[in-house]
Amino acid sequence: MGRAVGLWLVGACGSVGVTTTVGALAVRAGLAGRVGLVAEHPEIAAAGLSSLDDLVIGGHDLDVETLVKRAERLAAGGVVPAGILPALAGELAEVEGRLRTGYDPAGEEPQGVAVDRLSADLVAFRETHGLERVVVVDVASTEPPAEVVAGGPLTDPEVLAAALAAGESPLPASSVYVLAAYRAGCPVVSFTPSPGPRLPVLVTLAEQAGLPWAGSDGKTGETLLKSALAPMFATRALQVNAWASYNMLGGGDGATLADPDNARSKLVTKAQGLEAMLGHPVEGPMHIDYVPDHGDWKTAIDHVSFEGFLGVRMSLQFTWNGCDSALAAPLVLDLARLTLRAHQADESGPLPFGFFFKDPAGSTEHRLGTQWEELVAWCGRVGA
Amino acid sequence: MGRAVGLWLVGACGSVGVTTTVGALAVRAGLAGRVGLVAEHPEIAAAGLSSLDDLVIGGHDLDVETLVKRAERLAAGGVVPAGILPALAGELAEVEGRLRTGYDPAGEEPQGVAVDRLSADLVAFRETHGLERVVVVDVASTEPPAEVVAGGPLTDPEVLAAALAAGESPLPASSVYVLAAYRAGCPVVSFTPSPGPRLPVLVTLAEQAGLPWAGSDGKTGETLLKSALAPMFATRALQVNAWASYNMLGGGDGATLADPDNARSKLVTKAQGLEAMLGHPVEGPMHIDYVPDHGDWKTAIDHVSFEGFLGVRMSLQFTWNGCDSALAAPLVLDLARLTLRAHQADESGPLPFGFFFKDPAGSTEHRLGTQWEELVAWCGRVGA
Amino acid sequence: MGRAVGLWLVGACGSVGVTTTVGALAVRAGLAGRVGLVAEHPEIAAAGLSSLDDLVIGGHDLDVETLVKRAERLAAGGVVPAGILPALAGELAEVEGRLRTGYDPAGEEPQGVAVDRLSADLVAFRETHGLERVVVVDVASTEPPAEVVAGGPLTDPEVLAAALAAGESPLPASSVYVLAAYRAGCPVVSFTPSPGPRLPVLVTLAEQAGLPWAGSDGKTGETLLKSALAPMFATRALQVNAWASYNMLGGGDGATLADPDNARSKLVTKAQGLEAMLGHPVEGPMHIDYVPDHGDWKTAIDHVSFEGFLGVRMSLQFTWNGCDSALAAPLVLDLARLTLRAHQADESGPLPFGFFFKDPAGSTEHRLGTQWEELVAWCGRVGA
Amino acid sequence: MGRAVGLWLVGACGSVGVTTTVGALAVRAGLAGRVGLVAEHPEIAAAGLSSLDDLVIGGHDLDVETLVKRAERLAAGGVVPAGILPALAGELAEVEGRLRTGYDPAGEEPQGVAVDRLSADLVAFRETHGLERVVVVDVASTEPPAEVVAGGPLTDPEVLAAALAAGESPLPASSVYVLAAYRAGCPVVSFTPSPGPRLPVLVTLAEQAGLPWAGSDGKTGETLLKSALAPMFATRALQVNAWASYNMLGGGDGATLADPDNARSKLVTKAQGLEAMLGHPVEGPMHIDYVPDHGDWKTAIDHVSFEGFLGVRMSLQFTWNGCDSALAAPLVLDLARLTLRAHQADESGPLPFGFFFKDPAGSTEHRLGTQWEELVAWCGRVGA
Ligand SMILES: NC(=O)c1ccc[n+]([C@@H]2O[C@H](COP(=O)([O-])OP(=O)(O)OC[C@H]3O[C@@H](n4cnc5c(N)ncnc54)[C@H](O)[C@@H]3O)[C@@H](O)[C@H]2O)c1
Ligand SMILES: NC(=O)c1ccc[n+]([C@@H]2O[C@H](COP(=O)([O-])OP(=O)(O)OC[C@H]3O[C@@H](n4cnc5c(N)ncnc54)[C@H](O)[C@@H]3O)[C@@H](O)[C@H]2O)c1
Ligand SMILES: NC(=O)c1ccc[n+]([C@@H]2O[C@H](COP(=O)([O-])OP(=O)(O)OC[C@H]3O[C@@H](n4cnc5c(N)ncnc54)[C@H](O)[C@@H]3O)[C@@H](O)[C@H]2O)c1
Ligand SMILES: NC(=O)c1ccc[n+]([C@@H]2O[C@H](COP(=O)([O-])OP(=O)(O)OC[C@H]3O[C@@H](n4cnc5c(N)ncnc54)[C@H](O)[C@@H]3O)[C@@H](O)[C@H]2O)c1
Ligand code: NA
Ligand code: NA
Repeated sequence: MGRAVGLWLVGACGSVGVTTTVGALAVRAGLAGRVGLVAEHPEIAAAGLSSLDDLVIGGHDLDVETLVKRAERLAAGGVVPAGILPALAGELAEVEGRLRTGYDPAGEEPQGVAVDRLSADLVAFRETHGLERVVVVDVASTEPPAEVVAGGPLTDPEVLAAALAAGESPLPASSVYVLAAYRAGCPVVSFTPSPGPRLPVLVTLAEQAGLPWAGSDGKTGETLLKSALAPMFATRALQVNAWASYNMLGGGDGATLADPDNARSKLVTKAQGLEAMLGHPVEGPMHIDYVPDHGDWKTAIDHVSFEGFLGVRMSLQFTWNGCDSALAAPLVLDLARLTLRAHQADESGPLPFGFFFKDPAGSTEHRLGTQWEELVAWCGRVGA
Repeated sequence: MGRAVGLWLVGACGSVGVTTTVGALAVRAGLAGRVGLVAEHPEIAAAGLSSLDDLVIGGHDLDVETLVKRAERLAAGGVVPAGILPALAGELAEVEGRLRTGYDPAGEEPQGVAVDRLSADLVAFRETHGLERVVVVDVASTEPPAEVVAGGPLTDPEVLAAALAAGESPLPASSVYVLAAYRAGCPVVSFTPSPGPRLPVLVTLAEQAGLPWAGSDGKTGETLLKSALAPMFATRALQVNAWASYNMLGGGDGATLADPDNARSKLVTKAQGLEAMLGHPVEGPMHIDYVPDHGDWKTAIDHVSFEGFLGVRMSLQFTWNGCDSALAAPLVLDLARLTLRAHQADESGPLPFGFFFKDPAGSTEHRLGTQWEELVAWCGRVGA
Repeated sequence: MGRAVGLWLVGACGSVGVTTTVGALAVRAGLAGRVGLVAEHPEIAAAGLSSLDDLVIGGHDLDVETLVKRAERLAAGGVVPAGILPALAGELAEVEGRLRTGYDPAGEEPQGVAVDRLSADLVAFRETHGLERVVVVDVASTEPPAEVVAGGPLTDPEVLAAALAAGESPLPASSVYVLAAYRAGCPVVSFTPSPGPRLPVLVTLAEQAGLPWAGSDGKTGETLLKSALAPMFATRALQVNAWASYNMLGGGDGATLADPDNARSKLVTKAQGLEAMLGHPVEGPMHIDYVPDHGDWKTAIDHVSFEGFLGVRMSLQFTWNGCDSALAAPLVLDLARLTLRAHQADESGPLPFGFFFKDPAGSTEHRLGTQWEELVAWCGRVGA
Repeated sequence: MGRAVGLWLVGACGSVGVTTTVGALAVRAGLAGRVGLVAEHPEIAAAGLSSLDDLVIGGHDLDVETLVKRAERLAAGGVVPAGILPALAGELAEVEGRLRTGYDPAGEEPQGVAVDRLSADLVAFRETHGLERVVVVDVASTEPPAEVVAGGPLTDPEVLAAALAAGESPLPASSVYVLAAYRAGCPVVSFTPSPGPRLPVLVTLAEQAGLPWAGSDGKTGETLLKSALAPMFATRALQVNAWASYNMLGGGDGATLADPDNARSKLVTKAQGLEAMLGHPVEGPMHIDYVPDHGDWKTAIDHVSFEGFLGVRMSLQFTWNGCDSALAAPLVLDLARLTLRAHQADESGPLPFGFFFKDPAGSTEHRLGTQWEELVAWCGRVGA
């Protein structure tokens, strides 16, 4: 057994957060297999990652007493096997006990105060459990994109510091958590499309602190398929004329995306990769619809019209029926272990983990195969 | 304009053969664009390929007077634009004039005699048109797999020579053409699943002659999709439990495949790649059905059941609606140009062109992305 | 050969209008079969319908010199067989010669004047060609829904008359045509979702004039499928929880629907039938997207989530790939012949032709099977 | 509460049998709703049916101690809600206690002996529980079609009687049960494609005994869809050129169908309806594949190519994802109650219940809508 390390989930009581926690405990207890865990590939394990057994989980959420209840709801919905919860009850309650109240952007707390408080939570977590290091992973609800103004607090560390000192609250909530993490010396993973570590001011602060971070927006459904299929069209010189994308999802995330402001963030992220991979913009509707009946499941239907030699018209249509949280949770565990390793290896800045993300920081590479090879290369290098 | 080179099509009057010919002429005449031609990618062109303008086309078929008629049928079926045929009539007739009667395995001609005759056709073609070199591409009807017996004529050059000298005809027809090609010093591409150059005896003969060859079985539909999608499941550590494959096709090829003996060859080819990419065998029906109403179009419907973290069950289904000949023809042109370049560059043995093939000779790599990178690397090296 | 009758198309130069015209001429000339013509069923023919041979076609459009050009565009798009146009050139030109400039709601012409003018066009058409009777079929662009105010010109014939006399223009364009038709003693078919004959004032006027009319909004794609499938769920007591509808269409109609104001009319029409057939409202997104690359083709993708015994969750998904104009045109011919027969038989008011329509006038029956039986019963009765 | 009636399931321990039993008990106990029960429609209830509360269940199977175990397996597979089993444990055990060992065609028991024994089981069941009447429903494994020879024991009651008396065993097992039922004065429902009551000899014997019977082969998946969709193509005069049908199923039934002999029975049943509804034979592959990973779920993928006006080519594809047993079980309950009512009402011979069946006895009507109306009419008549 190695030295204990910490995984701090922002949004710990959400579907992804709870599935991650239940999953880690279940695998550890031998109650579930390791399907979906990318880190189990020898090429990735080669990086020299912490074992799941060494992971201590804590986190922030707005209402910290809902983890167990949410686990039961996920079991009812078929996301986690109902049978395993009783055996994990004790450990789940322990994790729930380690949760702390997060920062609520709708509340009164000035962000300067919040950063201090959240940062203290992280330090306390690390010290209480004797953790070698702690990674903060954002799996909280999606926020709308932030408007970044040159020279403002979202770009300039000194302007930001002054604003916080003056009791102002200029940051999106996701970035408040990142600032707190950096303050506590923790590396960060942004699994959501929220601004989080992507704000210029935080990019600079990570650099100054020499901290590594990864993001953003976990690639688990339609975009994953696109990143596997678009390179096929591109390398085969087939001309994609229209790519329609229809998404139906229920679940907590679906309800949030039903607010068009929040959906905007997601849609922008999804659209850009396709153009990068095909080399030209492609027409085609893209909808994300909230259909409560779908529960924790997502159905993505894509219809691709393309043209081949001599102008012949062809099409590809696919239907993806996936459980988003079950797809996301193992990636959260993978990213946590990889980013902890990066921190240990003194890496800094955006990590080359585009394989996991819709909107890969520090890269314009969206092709899944190439992203995989970049990841394998990094693991080989770090593990050497 | 470079030095003229030759493309010799075995099965020149079939759908693929005629679409290849019409396409090359149309592109040359500015009547069609270059969509679908992989060689137009700068990374591939970097190999220093002959221009389409320098390509002289000839070929073998059983009935050599059907090229123009087949072109009209393909136009009626929407495979080639009806409008362009009149402008190409003269050139098409010229190509038809260059066709020679092939080897008919149902006929009486002993294979030794056939090899001499076909080989002489190739030499005459090269000399008449002052061609620098000629590549032979097999786009004839699919044959059943051959039974290879150690020490027999399909493995041992001397036993083969003796058998041919004795008036025996031990080879599948596709291999008769390959033997004739090697005799004439021509490199070979096997675009079909037929044995062709894959027989051990021909692998040895190519080696002895220092000739390059590529094959086999053009990857244009369902298998193409599989080679793009299976690596996604594999790298994401998702466990594929069943992969069902349903194919409907009309057209000449469809009729041939309706004969279960011939289909066997195709099915075997298709099945093996999936297992290689996923790392384990996968259950799932695979059917190829001849549905005349589909004409030159193929509909492939695949249904993939897979399992993710915590045993959650998910699925992917796709429908591919493609025009096989339109997908195949540009690849035939690409392969011809690449293989001519390989010959010029004194490469020998099986070429690393798995990107184009369902059953890549000399490789167990089936992942499209990796095959693309191997191809790009080869082009870079040869073109340096 | 029977007595000649007239078909007057409002929107004669649109996709549906031109396909109707080309189709009628082609069938007549023996250049096309009768697939898609419902009137060919013996149960329908039993009504005693005019022959297609007796149909003289004319119509209104905004720019009346585009019929032939549009026919060529439709041929290029594969909607009508390119080969038949030359043989029909003379007759098509004749029809084009019979077209008259319609009423442009964006123009200056007062509606009172327009009604007189359009009505005179109809009378002249009838007299010039010695037609027994003329039916007016609206296949013009979709208009937004009209706002009907009790006691206003859209409900009260006298208020309308006064308004028109005063030089006002209170009617949607589609209703101007209907008023003109009734003035000329012509029955009407509304193939579009536009208000047309559905305004209360026109319902009254038809009644007063003893004229029959039919409408509205031809049922050719997704809604057709719904009317075939929803009764299955209903009679089997399966509970539909969500029905998502995604439509992609190019073509002239698609461009019009891209204007959300016009699409509203279509979406409202589509939503109501489902609820009527299932007996309860059903959640589920409905989108109509304009994807120019689809040309005259429509792809409708529907995803139905339903629940069976013991709460078990199931789904049905379908993809309909249809050529809207080719589906609509024969129905236009059917409706014309049926409505002419109704006129001859002195029927009046809304006809029981719900089989053809998304929004059947005078009925809440949306089930295709039942609508078919109603139609057959009517034909039997009228033909007896 | 009415007088108690009996439902005797042949194959009581199979998926359909157990789901029927669990479902009836759960509905009765208020633990499940009535979704899927056709008899809940007022038009059907109008026949005056027994309440589910009055139904006593018993049955035959080969191994009679597996009902509870199978229920647990179905709960694990998501077919019946896991949560309800504990509350039903007592009643389930009671039903298991009422099961009797069936007739095993692989065993030694002469059929004459078996008929006596099975018949006695039915009589004992009726008397022990004071049942007004008992209906026998066959939900046992599918058998291959029987070869009926004119004048043989499968056509002539006297020849059959003589054969049985002589210790011969000429009947398929499903027909042994029917003979026993008739002997005991019980009406019969054949929910399987097995010969059962369809043998001419049994048709005659039912007639002689004045007993009603219904069958055969419950219509729950692809064929259900076909019977809803084919009439749409037919009434719209669209020409279906090819209808491909691909079925994947796991479960007990899937394993049985993997034996091609048994599948033949199912395929024949499925093929005939389409031709009847469309009015002409239609090409198109039909496959039923056993894919264990699908468990109790069936995926049916159908691809329909059709032609419209002017020869335009279109397509419809659907994917049905259904839980066969959950679809079948409520129909078994419906059929039991309807057939008991028919018996009470002194109906005899094949009942007009085609709405429920792939291969409706005594009818060539396959259109779901029309079958529904026939059923409603019967219920109205019987209930009047
Ligand atoms: N496959 C996937 O599920 C997937 C893929 C990519 C990205 N994501 C992203 O992951 C995030 C979580 O998804 P989910 O399905 O778990 O959503 P969810 O709605 O179930 O959970 C979100 C959680 O965040 C909490 N939260 C909200 N605001 C917070 C704040 N200010 N501080 C702390 N906690 C806060 C909520 O209380 C809730 O518990 C979303 O942003 C989603 O877009 C998910
Ligand atoms: N996308 C594709 O179309 C695709 C992909 C992979 C492989 N292929 C293979 O390409 C081949 C051609 O396909 P197609 O659709 O053009 O088929 P096709 O039936 O239209 O044409 C085959 C041609 O080969 C000729 N032929 C048959 N036996 C011959 C012989 N002994 N010598 C010379 N010619 C002979 C036939 O006369 C015919 O003209 C097939 O083997 C097919 O499996 C095609
Ligand atoms: N299957 C179908 O195609 C289908 C089904 C149901 C309803 N419809 C309806 O049929 C109508 C026609 O569809 P389309 O695809 O032919 O559209 P289109 O855009 O190709 O044609 C519409 C025609 O109407 C003409 N027009 C517009 N305003 C006019 C006016 N004020 N007076 C006279 N003409 C006018 C236009 O100039 C054009 O020629 C639409 O309203 C559509 O919603 C079509
Ligand atoms: N939706 C549907 O599930 C559906 C639809 C139509 C028809 N059916 C038919 O219903 C039948 C049952 O399907 P299932 O999924 O429950 O199958 P299953 O294999 O789960 O169950 C069949 C049962 O029949 C029993 N059995 C076999 N031979 C027997 C015999 N000689 N006597 C008594 N019992 C015997 C078996 O032991 C088993 O318990 C099949 O014939 C199937 O084709 C089912
Ligand atoms: Na082909
Ligand atoms: Na249109």
